[in-house]
Amino acid sequence: MPEIYLNAIASALGKKVEENTPEVLKQSIEDCERLVKKTGVARRPIALPDQYTSDLAFAAATTLLAQQNLKKQELNVLLVCTQTPDHLIPGVSSRVHGMLGLSENCFTLDINQGCSGFIMGTQTIAALLESISGPGLLINADTYSRLIRPEDLTTRLLFGDAATASLYSNKPYGLRVIYNRSFSDGAGYDAFVAYGSALREDQGKAEGIHMDGAGILNFALSKVPDSIHSALKDNGLQIEQIRMIAFHQANGFVINKLAQKLRLHPDQAPKNCESLGNTVSASIPLLLHQQWPVLNKGDLIMAAGFGVGLSWGVSLFEFVGHEAQ
Amino acid sequence: MPEIYLNAIASALGKKVEENTPEVLKQSIEDCERLVKKTGVARRPIALPDQYTSDLAFAAATTLLAQQNLKKQELNVLLVCTQTPDHLIPGVSSRVHGMLGLSENCFTLDINQGCSGFIMGTQTIAALLESISGPGLLINADTYSRLIRPEDLTTRLLFGDAATASLYSNKPYGLRVIYNRSFSDGAGYDAFVAYGSALREDQGKAEGIHMDGAGILNFALSKVPDSIHSALKDNGLQIEQIRMIAFHQANGFVINKLAQKLRLHPDQAPKNCESLGNTVSASIPLLLHQQWPVLNKGDLIMAAGFGVGLSWGVSLFEFVGHEAQ
Repeated sequence: MPEIYLNAIASALGKKVEENTPEVLKQSIEDCERLVKKTGVARRPIALPDQYTSDLAFAAATTLLAQQNLKKQELNVLLVCTQTPDHLIPGVSSRVHGMLGLSENCFTLDINQGCSGFIMGTQTIAALLESISGPGLLINADTYSRLIRPEDLTTRLLFGDAATASLYSNKPYGLRVIYNRSFSDGAGYDAFVAYGSALREDQGKAEGIHMDGAGILNFALSKVPDSIHSALKDNGLQIEQIRMIAFHQANGFVINKLAQKLRLHPDQAPKNCESLGNTVSASIPLLLHQQWPVLNKGDLIMAAGFGVGLSWGVSLFEFVGHEAQ
Repeated sequence: MPEIYLNAIASALGKKVEENTPEVLKQSIEDCERLVKKTGVARRPIALPDQYTSDLAFAAATTLLAQQNLKKQELNVLLVCTQTPDHLIPGVSSRVHGMLGLSENCFTLDINQGCSGFIMGTQTIAALLESISGPGLLINADTYSRLIRPEDLTTRLLFGDAATASLYSNKPYGLRVIYNRSFSDGAGYDAFVAYGSALREDQGKAEGIHMDGAGILNFALSKVPDSIHSALKDNGLQIEQIRMIAFHQANGFVINKLAQKLRLHPDQAPKNCESLGNTVSASIPLLLHQQWPVLNKGDLIMAAGFGVGLSWGVSLFEFVGHEAQ
């Protein structure tokens, strides 16, 4: 099979910055400081009322195409991973296809996945690019703020609205895709649900996101290390050989716990949730994008997503250089 | 690349049958007869109030697993194609994963696509099964009836609620997947939209599906024949060599027009919309399932999806036999 590379990433953020202050969170100064310290989230980008998922997706894609000097007609795959679409019918990818003015030949599809969406998206686009000649774009875009119940301040303080656009092709620069593996446990469906968000009538449930924080934490601390150990074993690697693991930025607490469990050096578990919060499936590519300038040729990079579904997964990349060979 | 086969299909229908009678459509006897004659849709399965997309999907999958004597732990891919999910978060595939009790190793994902969803779904699952060892399930499931405005009787008379479960693997029986190609034109996003169905505030628009019937018809009659001619050319085939084209069952009128434009023999353009209506992405697999018993080894079968997005696409299969070799 031809090698597939994640060549570049661009992003767009919700235009409002919401600070996790006592006023916003309606907490005492002490409680607020405690929450910010525990979660590691001090502020988050939030979409303005007229800023929809398609707008964030379009902005990230436009930046990427300009930076990469790519003509819109060249794109042959457009995947948009979102759980907060403008409409159920059609998908966000159709809207973005029209906004960008892409070619009729571009395979255009939405996938619905949460915090594992970058892993599953990478796995899906890499598979599609085996038979469709690239380049292809994976957009991870969500505006969870629209589904958080106003009174649910402990959820609100965690989530940010953002989009990333990630370019994949067979051109050998950036991150070579070595391995993807995704897992699911639908028995945990109720641990993270947005009631009343689509067509099911959820009688007796307040509309919006309901998160079993303790349940999700236990799940993550059990399944994520196992899947990383499996990925290491499948690739004949030791954890010391991994330059860094880009964990889904659920919050600082869970990332610290995961790093501790896996006995990682602090440099191996970078974080960016202090000013971005949990941006769902965009969080890993946002982190990779930030880390990109410090990557060296030969670096092995893992990415680990986990969350809603329940679902989790691991990707392994090798950085092969900053420029097209 | 290993060959991928569509081994078998099972289905589940909305439990209520709605007849296109003068009472239901609030039309005169003459107008109703005219509409039924033109559209070719006499009745449609409609989901009961407690029958959600996940229920139809689960029922179709359960039937398929039983018929194929497949253990639930064997499935390694579950794709659910829907535009009418129970919730935005998580996807229907997560719910069905839990209901079926599938393995943690099963790659589980929703894709959002309308009447091209069987083509794009086949293309996606075939691509995934190149690197994930199968078998895998593609479920096409929708309950559009929930999004049709009560007063929009000309749309209501067309759509049915149904699900199909299609099994794909590298076992050589059923339909060998030869070719898939998908197209998009996001400039036609507004030709078929469900306003108010997710997170965009569509001020001044009545909630529910809005369809530009004439626009969609013109689009279909222009793009679908072109894509079929391209598929024939790409595969070095003449249309006479195709045993049948399983058109998306939008309605009888458009299928007859397409058959006429392509100069098909009536047997080459089978229909089942009289009693099923337009079941969105389930319509092609429902038709293939009905035609299955009359297929002979060596038959070349095309499938052509078209609709919302706008999007369209063509698959080509060869029937290799009813039983596992």
